[in-house]
Amino acid sequence: MTFKISIVGASGYTGGELLRILKNHAEVEIIGVYGKTSTGKKITELHPHLTDLLDLTIKKPDYEKIGEKSDLVFTATPHATAMEFVPKILEFGAKVVDLSADYRLENVEIFEEYYTKHSSPEVESVYGLPELYRDEIKHANLVANPGCYPTAGILSLAPALTEGLVKRDPIIIDSKSGTSGAGAKPSEKLHHPVCAENLRAYNVTSHRHGPEIKQEAEKLAGGKVNTCFTPHLIPIIRGILNTTHTFLREPIDQKEVISPYRSFYKDEPFVRVLDKLPQTSAVRGSNFCDIGIRTSEKNNRTTIIAVIDNLVKGASGQAVQNMNLMLGLNEEKGLKQVPLRP
Amino acid sequence: MTFKISIVGASGYTGGELLRILKNHAEVEIIGVYGKTSTGKKITELHPHLTDLLDLTIKKPDYEKIGEKSDLVFTATPHATAMEFVPKILEFGAKVVDLSADYRLENVEIFEEYYTKHSSPEVESVYGLPELYRDEIKHANLVANPGCYPTAGILSLAPALTEGLVKRDPIIIDSKSGTSGAGAKPSEKLHHPVCAENLRAYNVTSHRHGPEIKQEAEKLAGGKVNTCFTPHLIPIIRGILNTTHTFLREPIDQKEVISPYRSFYKDEPFVRVLDKLPQTSAVRGSNFCDIGIRTSEKNNRTTIIAVIDNLVKGASGQAVQNMNLMLGLNEEKGLKQVPLRP
Amino acid sequence: MTFKISIVGASGYTGGELLRILKNHAEVEIIGVYGKTSTGKKITELHPHLTDLLDLTIKKPDYEKIGEKSDLVFTATPHATAMEFVPKILEFGAKVVDLSADYRLENVEIFEEYYTKHSSPEVESVYGLPELYRDEIKHANLVANPGCYPTAGILSLAPALTEGLVKRDPIIIDSKSGTSGAGAKPSEKLHHPVCAENLRAYNVTSHRHGPEIKQEAEKLAGGKVNTCFTPHLIPIIRGILNTTHTFLREPIDQKEVISPYRSFYKDEPFVRVLDKLPQTSAVRGSNFCDIGIRTSEKNNRTTIIAVIDNLVKGASGQAVQNMNLMLGLNEEKGLKQVPLRP
Amino acid sequence: MTFKISIVGASGYTGGELLRILKNHAEVEIIGVYGKTSTGKKITELHPHLTDLLDLTIKKPDYEKIGEKSDLVFTATPHATAMEFVPKILEFGAKVVDLSADYRLENVEIFEEYYTKHSSPEVESVYGLPELYRDEIKHANLVANPGCYPTAGILSLAPALTEGLVKRDPIIIDSKSGTSGAGAKPSEKLHHPVCAENLRAYNVTSHRHGPEIKQEAEKLAGGKVNTCFTPHLIPIIRGILNTTHTFLREPIDQKEVISPYRSFYKDEPFVRVLDKLPQTSAVRGSNFCDIGIRTSEKNNRTTIIAVIDNLVKGASGQAVQNMNLMLGLNEEKGLKQVPLRP
Repeated sequence: MTFKISIVGASGYTGGELLRILKNHAEVEIIGVYGKTSTGKKITELHPHLTDLLDLTIKKPDYEKIGEKSDLVFTATPHATAMEFVPKILEFGAKVVDLSADYRLENVEIFEEYYTKHSSPEVESVYGLPELYRDEIKHANLVANPGCYPTAGILSLAPALTEGLVKRDPIIIDSKSGTSGAGAKPSEKLHHPVCAENLRAYNVTSHRHGPEIKQEAEKLAGGKVNTCFTPHLIPIIRGILNTTHTFLREPIDQKEVISPYRSFYKDEPFVRVLDKLPQTSAVRGSNFCDIGIRTSEKNNRTTIIAVIDNLVKGASGQAVQNMNLMLGLNEEKGLKQVPLRP
Repeated sequence: MTFKISIVGASGYTGGELLRILKNHAEVEIIGVYGKTSTGKKITELHPHLTDLLDLTIKKPDYEKIGEKSDLVFTATPHATAMEFVPKILEFGAKVVDLSADYRLENVEIFEEYYTKHSSPEVESVYGLPELYRDEIKHANLVANPGCYPTAGILSLAPALTEGLVKRDPIIIDSKSGTSGAGAKPSEKLHHPVCAENLRAYNVTSHRHGPEIKQEAEKLAGGKVNTCFTPHLIPIIRGILNTTHTFLREPIDQKEVISPYRSFYKDEPFVRVLDKLPQTSAVRGSNFCDIGIRTSEKNNRTTIIAVIDNLVKGASGQAVQNMNLMLGLNEEKGLKQVPLRP
Repeated sequence: MTFKISIVGASGYTGGELLRILKNHAEVEIIGVYGKTSTGKKITELHPHLTDLLDLTIKKPDYEKIGEKSDLVFTATPHATAMEFVPKILEFGAKVVDLSADYRLENVEIFEEYYTKHSSPEVESVYGLPELYRDEIKHANLVANPGCYPTAGILSLAPALTEGLVKRDPIIIDSKSGTSGAGAKPSEKLHHPVCAENLRAYNVTSHRHGPEIKQEAEKLAGGKVNTCFTPHLIPIIRGILNTTHTFLREPIDQKEVISPYRSFYKDEPFVRVLDKLPQTSAVRGSNFCDIGIRTSEKNNRTTIIAVIDNLVKGASGQAVQNMNLMLGLNEEKGLKQVPLRP
Repeated sequence: MTFKISIVGASGYTGGELLRILKNHAEVEIIGVYGKTSTGKKITELHPHLTDLLDLTIKKPDYEKIGEKSDLVFTATPHATAMEFVPKILEFGAKVVDLSADYRLENVEIFEEYYTKHSSPEVESVYGLPELYRDEIKHANLVANPGCYPTAGILSLAPALTEGLVKRDPIIIDSKSGTSGAGAKPSEKLHHPVCAENLRAYNVTSHRHGPEIKQEAEKLAGGKVNTCFTPHLIPIIRGILNTTHTFLREPIDQKEVISPYRSFYKDEPFVRVLDKLPQTSAVRGSNFCDIGIRTSEKNNRTTIIAVIDNLVKGASGQAVQNMNLMLGLNEEKGLKQVPLRP
């Protein structure tokens, strides 16, 4: 038996990545791909690497039918789009993994400050980070798949905040992302001659992933946490490297910091705690998050470095991990791709 | 039942890529990895992306034992190395796929002109391009895995030369390769500040893949062919794009050129003949060779563009394809990775 | 005394590059920059590297006044645009260097086949390649600045065709260009996640620079030449590498080919004939064209490699070189930038 | 009259960059280039972009003669090398700009903790950051040219610490550098297939530029400052982007932070304080440092972003700026290159 899967929003990078992963997932069948701007297009026009592999045409969505016929629906649409139709899909019986930000923030006021008016704030969702919310995800009808920066950021902080190893103020999260995180739509900032051989920070104090990280950090710490998030655009295609600068509460040495990280993640299939410093190429194309830590006895600073592939663990891989949990499948199913390096 | 596989030369990029592919190949077991310069090292020190995935340590090779215990051995050593020990491995009962150039050239004089004195020219081998020699490969004990440029070059020419569509003189093969093709050893030419944002040709008239392409082109054509091969180094990691400039024997139109290509490759699992022009990113990390063709009525020129991932179809993927054939397995086993794009 | 210079079309890359070069040119003054889509914008909004260096605002062009007030006008507008207003500028007294293709092709039918209807084919122009037409340029009122690919292509062929060293059929020009050659307008092909780590050919038999190269090659050879031009897009920002595949008429050795190249270019300030193979990084940011040659005794093939910075010798640097000649200035004035490497 | 300049250590990137800059400096003459490992080599073998521009051969150094004949000597040798011979050069009458770290740290114990035993700690030097020490530099015989990261780091902090705008603990300096900063010697970390499309932090708590930044920050603040420096390797060739995370002492708004930066740098020829966020490509090949600032009212954090070309303002450009000051020349002489963008 296979589960019936639909994808709404299949023309972007997270849509393409869902197709890449699900193509080799033996227990699901993609029964439909939907979109508005690209209705009628072959999936291979948009994703040429899928030529001869998937013969699908993008259809105009009818959310009732999608909800009725699907066991689970991925919504990979721009922010403030899914919230319009997710309630209908749920109503007609399908589970949903939403890859947009629409259901990530628990406080609707904060959502509306950073995004826009929310049209369905009453819908219940679970924040889809399996390492923190595995049980809730298993029983959820709607999972809000985390943002790419928050995935790396929260996995970096979870053991430290849970164990109370580091001070809650300040926590500096200096993030570097490849360009695929900005999506498939051409723009001046992502134009190759502008973007290659160039470094820049952007949305320095105002990026929308800031409150998402803060929300989860505070739940982990059980109180206020002063997370300061700054994203940078780096001319590589895939990969996020998060450098989280924290300060120890008590002077302990590096091993005493790494050890609780190993314990926290010891049964996690997709988190690797390293002795060495991590690098994005070692997780490319895979669902891994690699974490390395360095402390300094001189000033008790502890620097936590985490890397993910922003399109996999930072988006579509994590979405499939959530799907597996929601459908009662082996969590690693379809996600065993070995990273592609060099 | 699984087949027992050994790898001699596991520290380089083709060795790492064999490990990446075989990790998810259900019908083989890697029983040993061997090397001289890196004896005693964990495979994950050399290939950090394999952390937690493969727990193997590189051992000093004992070729008798390797030959005795293995069903098949991959030799991924530098040129002029495998020829010293492949005869012994064969003698003790294992089949061999040699990823070096040692057994590719049928004429030992040409080998010795381009490489060095050959120590075991008497050993029989099959040239491991499944699209041309599938049946011979199935029954071979030793397969000479083709070079990266020749793989793209010969697949570009096979239908045209077999069908006599193009003139045999001249055939200009202008090749562009990513940097992983030059191997894992640091050098000035591949030093990032020198290599990035730079274009250069190299070994313009003297590259060792020239005679390999010529050998196969002449077998296809059944006579002399004037292939002129020129390689270029391009600052991308993976990917070869071969532009083969030929001239039609008779003025036929583009469709009449593409059509025999489609026929020739219609049952091939890893060759995709496109209407559009190919691009390397659409085959990245996969075993595909994508081919596109353009002709001009003005001067009867026909330009054949082929792309491969030099480490997969150009090396380790093709080696596993050969292994599958030699062991009687499904040819696509372990090679269904969807290309990684973007 | 300084000459008064205007630039029509200052928002693109060739416009920005003119500003970069002219900023340090002691004998000219930029009296106005003009454009339609960016009227009213500060030049530094479009070209942030010019901050604090040039305080200019883009104005709506009045071609009569521009012609009246300027000694020389650069037109760096899209193709089929300059031809509408260049006659007026000339009429009102200014000289013009047109960086578009509008006046490059002598045969208006060929222009109209590859571009569009020409509105002022009667205007006389000189093809602005100083190495071939220095004297004519000195006396010209309108110089058609060559295309980037043709600059590299023609400089590669000029000595060989003039001296009759190589056969005229076929001449294969396989060109590789960085992305800045495609201009400043964002598009899917130049979107960083699509373009980086990717190789592709484009417009394989139909690129507009094909007939431009052919025109000049035939003038050099004094008869028909079968030039076959194929461009490729390479993920570097600046640089063209042209690989020109030719065949010797008589079997001569490599030195006998290089020697006439050295003679031909011995007094040229911007052409360097190398013993080694050239590389684009060695000309980055400069007006140099570096040329290297390799021949093979085996089949008399001669491969000529030329590199330029497509925005300098391939566009704006050559335009300033032409300006210097037209205004009676030292040809190298403003163009002595040392290449930027690494 | 021109000044006589010698360069000891001309084979590396900072040596090449000195040659590039000085080639167009009208008031100096390069009378000799010296080195040990590359004695006898033509400068153009090492720096192919200088072909036809500089005809110099690297000689074995005789420090007495160098000191006697030169007005000023640049020492661009590896750390712990210059300290062996700089005293002799000074003794024989030449001024010295040392591009290594040998004379940057005032506290010899800290030098010896991070580098090695110092052989000439008694020699007096001035820290060569003109924006802070212009007058001292004018009268110095030995200038210690700052490190690349410290240049960006200290220029980011100088106004804030001088004016007491931000708290002294903690100050997080998260730095991203292109690969040319690591020098010309090939290594695994800088091998293109490893380095391209990859992000990593390195020497997270132990980098040698940490104490250099701290030394200058404490002098600016007049007391202890807790600077926490973390460098990252980014796959671009040139460029450093420093993100300095600080916290305001009093809640003031963004304009009130930017305004003292503008005042502090208003007469500086090479520091541009921007309204927008800076980007490395806007300073490429130039001696500029661009600075942008963002504050958040929510938590009083102030993020200061600075960019430089690590080989120019971060090394050889600043060295020439220091030379100009030491020789009584116009500080901008030879340094008016417009940044190369795109």
